[in-house]
Amino acid sequence: MSSNSTGKLFTVTTFGESHGPAIGCVIDGCPPGLSIDVEAFRTDLDRRATGRSRHTSQRREADEVEILSGVYQGRTTGTPIALLIRNTDQRSKDYGDIVDTFRPGHADYTYWQKYGIRDPRGGGRSSARETTMRVAAAVIAKKWLAERYGVLIRGYLAQLGEVTPEGFDWDAVEQNSFFWPHEPQVPALEKYMDALRKSGDSVGARVNVDAEGVPPGWGEPIYGKLDGDLAAALMSINAVKGVEIGDGFDAVAQRGSQHRDEMHMDGFTSNHAGGILGGISTGQVVRASIALKPTSSILIPGHSVNLVGEPVDVVTKGRHDPCVGIRATPIAEAMMALVLMDHALRHRAQCGDVGEIKPRIP
Amino acid sequence: MSSNSTGKLFTVTTFGESHGPAIGCVIDGCPPGLSIDVEAFRTDLDRRATGRSRHTSQRREADEVEILSGVYQGRTTGTPIALLIRNTDQRSKDYGDIVDTFRPGHADYTYWQKYGIRDPRGGGRSSARETTMRVAAAVIAKKWLAERYGVLIRGYLAQLGEVTPEGFDWDAVEQNSFFWPHEPQVPALEKYMDALRKSGDSVGARVNVDAEGVPPGWGEPIYGKLDGDLAAALMSINAVKGVEIGDGFDAVAQRGSQHRDEMHMDGFTSNHAGGILGGISTGQVVRASIALKPTSSILIPGHSVNLVGEPVDVVTKGRHDPCVGIRATPIAEAMMALVLMDHALRHRAQCGDVGEIKPRIP
Amino acid sequence: MSSNSTGKLFTVTTFGESHGPAIGCVIDGCPPGLSIDVEAFRTDLDRRATGRSRHTSQRREADEVEILSGVYQGRTTGTPIALLIRNTDQRSKDYGDIVDTFRPGHADYTYWQKYGIRDPRGGGRSSARETTMRVAAAVIAKKWLAERYGVLIRGYLAQLGEVTPEGFDWDAVEQNSFFWPHEPQVPALEKYMDALRKSGDSVGARVNVDAEGVPPGWGEPIYGKLDGDLAAALMSINAVKGVEIGDGFDAVAQRGSQHRDEMHMDGFTSNHAGGILGGISTGQVVRASIALKPTSSILIPGHSVNLVGEPVDVVTKGRHDPCVGIRATPIAEAMMALVLMDHALRHRAQCGDVGEIKPRIP
Amino acid sequence: MSSNSTGKLFTVTTFGESHGPAIGCVIDGCPPGLSIDVEAFRTDLDRRATGRSRHTSQRREADEVEILSGVYQGRTTGTPIALLIRNTDQRSKDYGDIVDTFRPGHADYTYWQKYGIRDPRGGGRSSARETTMRVAAAVIAKKWLAERYGVLIRGYLAQLGEVTPEGFDWDAVEQNSFFWPHEPQVPALEKYMDALRKSGDSVGARVNVDAEGVPPGWGEPIYGKLDGDLAAALMSINAVKGVEIGDGFDAVAQRGSQHRDEMHMDGFTSNHAGGILGGISTGQVVRASIALKPTSSILIPGHSVNLVGEPVDVVTKGRHDPCVGIRATPIAEAMMALVLMDHALRHRAQCGDVGEIKPRIP
Repeated sequence: MSSNSTGKLFTVTTFGESHGPAIGCVIDGCPPGLSIDVEAFRTDLDRRATGRSRHTSQRREADEVEILSGVYQGRTTGTPIALLIRNTDQRSKDYGDIVDTFRPGHADYTYWQKYGIRDPRGGGRSSARETTMRVAAAVIAKKWLAERYGVLIRGYLAQLGEVTPEGFDWDAVEQNSFFWPHEPQVPALEKYMDALRKSGDSVGARVNVDAEGVPPGWGEPIYGKLDGDLAAALMSINAVKGVEIGDGFDAVAQRGSQHRDEMHMDGFTSNHAGGILGGISTGQVVRASIALKPTSSILIPGHSVNLVGEPVDVVTKGRHDPCVGIRATPIAEAMMALVLMDHALRHRAQCGDVGEIKPRIP
Repeated sequence: MSSNSTGKLFTVTTFGESHGPAIGCVIDGCPPGLSIDVEAFRTDLDRRATGRSRHTSQRREADEVEILSGVYQGRTTGTPIALLIRNTDQRSKDYGDIVDTFRPGHADYTYWQKYGIRDPRGGGRSSARETTMRVAAAVIAKKWLAERYGVLIRGYLAQLGEVTPEGFDWDAVEQNSFFWPHEPQVPALEKYMDALRKSGDSVGARVNVDAEGVPPGWGEPIYGKLDGDLAAALMSINAVKGVEIGDGFDAVAQRGSQHRDEMHMDGFTSNHAGGILGGISTGQVVRASIALKPTSSILIPGHSVNLVGEPVDVVTKGRHDPCVGIRATPIAEAMMALVLMDHALRHRAQCGDVGEIKPRIP
Repeated sequence: MSSNSTGKLFTVTTFGESHGPAIGCVIDGCPPGLSIDVEAFRTDLDRRATGRSRHTSQRREADEVEILSGVYQGRTTGTPIALLIRNTDQRSKDYGDIVDTFRPGHADYTYWQKYGIRDPRGGGRSSARETTMRVAAAVIAKKWLAERYGVLIRGYLAQLGEVTPEGFDWDAVEQNSFFWPHEPQVPALEKYMDALRKSGDSVGARVNVDAEGVPPGWGEPIYGKLDGDLAAALMSINAVKGVEIGDGFDAVAQRGSQHRDEMHMDGFTSNHAGGILGGISTGQVVRASIALKPTSSILIPGHSVNLVGEPVDVVTKGRHDPCVGIRATPIAEAMMALVLMDHALRHRAQCGDVGEIKPRIP
Repeated sequence: MSSNSTGKLFTVTTFGESHGPAIGCVIDGCPPGLSIDVEAFRTDLDRRATGRSRHTSQRREADEVEILSGVYQGRTTGTPIALLIRNTDQRSKDYGDIVDTFRPGHADYTYWQKYGIRDPRGGGRSSARETTMRVAAAVIAKKWLAERYGVLIRGYLAQLGEVTPEGFDWDAVEQNSFFWPHEPQVPALEKYMDALRKSGDSVGARVNVDAEGVPPGWGEPIYGKLDGDLAAALMSINAVKGVEIGDGFDAVAQRGSQHRDEMHMDGFTSNHAGGILGGISTGQVVRASIALKPTSSILIPGHSVNLVGEPVDVVTKGRHDPCVGIRATPIAEAMMALVLMDHALRHRAQCGDVGEIKPRIP
């Protein structure tokens, strides 16, 4: 199976480099009959887009999605859906001076070691530009999951550097450019980011993503566990260094009597598990959290070597987010959606549709 | 692809329930000519075995591996290697009272919801018993990686409940039953565990695992990243709720100038990345860390429901570890080994063997 | 994905060598709740078994299937079903003189070239012994397809050397040891085979297999077509050199006006297509035909070379069928069943269960 | 894995409908460093193109390939290669009258039954238009196989209706628009086709394809056999109803003493096996043959039903080949190339590169 594909039954294959002619994806396995049009992609692509605020990269991308196949008269036909976005704002000259240099913290060196050749323009294939297509593909997954099962997937920025939310309100999340769940902190965050940019440095972030309405029974033991697949999908996002399900690393210091989620006749009394037990959804909210490292492209010079092994100092010019995590929320949602979509189909393959098998407990 | 399989080219498929007749695995894709015999499995299976100390489950398993295929005159032939271990110590009666009850924190409920039927004996397929076969399969992977590339994979217990190591020495790890890297703390840990068992409760743990000697270039963008595959593999271990690569969640509060690993002519000066950039190995130590939740099977009664929806109190008798993390070290090593083995083969498929492509930088 | 696995969702992985300790398989993806017991395997294994008549190899195999996992209280649980058959009648000494020789027409040479090592006992992994597990796995597939959709799969010997049936009656097929559809010819076939054995030579055969009751809609364009998957599955049977769907090679000299199957209000008027159009089932009988080459293991000496390149004459002693095609019927049925089972699950993954999507035409 | 993908390691995913905006493919797993440019595609696309002679469909397609990704400065980078061809000559109105009708012998009915919706324009996804991308992708495979291993893949038309070649000369094949291997017959073939077109009918064809220079050892038992994968790949070509390897169905009536290929010190003395034994290449020419049914789109009216089940007569206007087999030669070559490319990579994954394992026999 292609390493540029994700999903076993709802299979998304992405292609494209940051500064090549285009990026795109092919979605195979989509159920037929789903209504879809190019407008459907705009909201989430805008949420992900660079340039949405002064705190993210100033590269402006039109991100106009063209549907090349798989949709007829506004409905999916069951054949592969190809989506294409032309790259229209490639200032390759910005990257001219890194052609012969390995930027610290970047994939420059590893691509070079692996392939003996790399497209240095904007990071080539390793650029976060690729995540645009994940978001686009996930628009379809989100729509189907919502229409058929009432699944709602949404995320927020749960930590920005050392700052954590002092309150929580889902309504606030979409009201500010940080996806921050506590509106009163937003002005302080803006100052924080301004100072950071001035310093030429960057910070990491944490993003949480929830899926509500997931029926019990999605996920496949042992190596197709829902949490295992989520871990792979989330870790594949650029800059992610850690993934948690439910309480995650907090579980290390917990007691069993504290962590286990007890059940009553009307359901679970807590959700330390993050909605997954034994790799299968419990019917509670599926909850994941990811750690994103600070942007490696910063204005503070760093030591590195060039292609002939000589020491060089690297300053990354170009347009870069001082915190890549800020626009990671829609991407994390996208990966959650793709994994759930895949497991929805996998579940009904083996077990029939949700509700076909009727255990004695509702 | 089977959900009970892991690995694209070095594919391990496991089968078996905790209290069924046997557990086993089929390993497909192993390079031919590797010398292997049944003795090879003993060390790691003993390291993983329950009953190795009074702090782990008292179930005694002979864990005698039988090689059913794929090995001729002591060498792998390239055909599938099937390994079988008979279950010899199944005290199913221990589990009789949970047949009609969902134990909190267990997969009982989710298997029931998914399949409408479950094998309740010892957790059936969701038991950690399955990990025995991962360890067995990984013995072969470890051996090939060591012989061909000099890769060394080893792990240790990095946290037990709230206790962390106060020193570090690889030599200590194998000298105590906790895989603890600081010998002087071991007596205190034993007291800690005795008190825990007396209380009827359990704790979580953190396990770290390192792979040294991994050549640069292993891992495949975008959805076959080395860290993505590690995340899936490690998250698939029973009770794991979090995975980190390198600095993991610590990266959230770091600055870019601090996190990025600079390079000099003689290599990297730090390893915050955990040996992976852009999903591809850098040539440094590949480092992962996992969080294991506290054992859900505890003697303290918990609220739950039975198959007909009535409230019940559950006390898990039977033999259980008060900390499943204690014997997770060899399992984490196993998953690291299986992922690296798979990527070693994937790399040489696309790029030829290590060193065939010769970038200008060593 | 493992090369010793077949099927995307109903995945069967086989292992084992002809003269190793055992052969077996792991079936992953089976729907839960199907009743199954060891007796279920006997009929088809007996049909396939060597030793069923004097015209097939005299090796006697008990072929007792042990169910190692995935079945609880007589029902499938949704977890992997492992089946094991011990090899009890390995007369390895029969093969002693071919250890250093490549038998013409056998896989001896190619395994040697590929792996640099081979298990020469009875052909090792390349022996038709492996097909026992296909038949066993297919028992489960046949049962599920029959119970859920009323699918009936059956085959017959359609040509033996130059002899073709002079009549056709499904009832006759199971009444003779050739799976021959015209009883009056059976005595002549027995004489034919006796003469053939006396001559020390062998012949090829053609086997046809039909699946009735397959609903329209199974099969996935473009590279998961039902006929494409059937072709792979049938070609993977030992000695098969050709596969046809429907009219097969006869279509070459046909006219379009003759070949195309017209439709009336009550269905198709012919079935030249073999029940598949565009890779998807039409609802008619799915029909495939295979060519099996003559057994390569014959008593007539053949020229070959040994491991050091010297010319040798090879006479294959041991127990061999003068026509491998005679017992290929149950194997061809098995592959048809495995492919249909896989596509039944794939169809309901993407499109819901049969009948969920309701086109306006019944 | 996507059903619109072929190949395990050299994975080609195609997308697009006959009359949609574009067709395209994504090639994942290509070794880095291969020189490639848009001109490389022209020869084979022209060979496949409709409109190349008056005997094939008169639709004229520019078939200008755009490389969207994976190539930098004229060399493959190891990242996915996306190829795009815009559809520029879609006369959808030609198909207006078949929107509500199922054409006999076409996939109209089965797509409708499977998906409940279909793109009727030119057959949509089921059109042979899709094979353009196979040919394009195979250009890369052919080039790599030729440069690295000296593999040469070429095919020819081996039967046209009832006409077979009366001589054979590889040089002739590319000199006529039929890919016919015997030049003197070409004028007669042209008359044959003219008469056929005048009659409004169509005929089937047989295409043979050879691969020379394939090293011994490619192919993987049991379900990844080289012949099994070839069978699937060739059967997936539109209109193919049969596949043979080597002697194919002729083997049915052969004797073992006649079929088996004997070996001498300087190699095999015959090639009835078609270069494959036990699913693995022998080092001889790999030889396959396919049967293509007569075009279903003919001017002679046929009985069918419409979407509401009423009987209708169908006449397929539009532009259609009276023998689809005429331009199938480059497509068959393409599928042979894709399968061999995939197995070249699979072989070096498990066994190292060709020649790394050195059996004692050359």
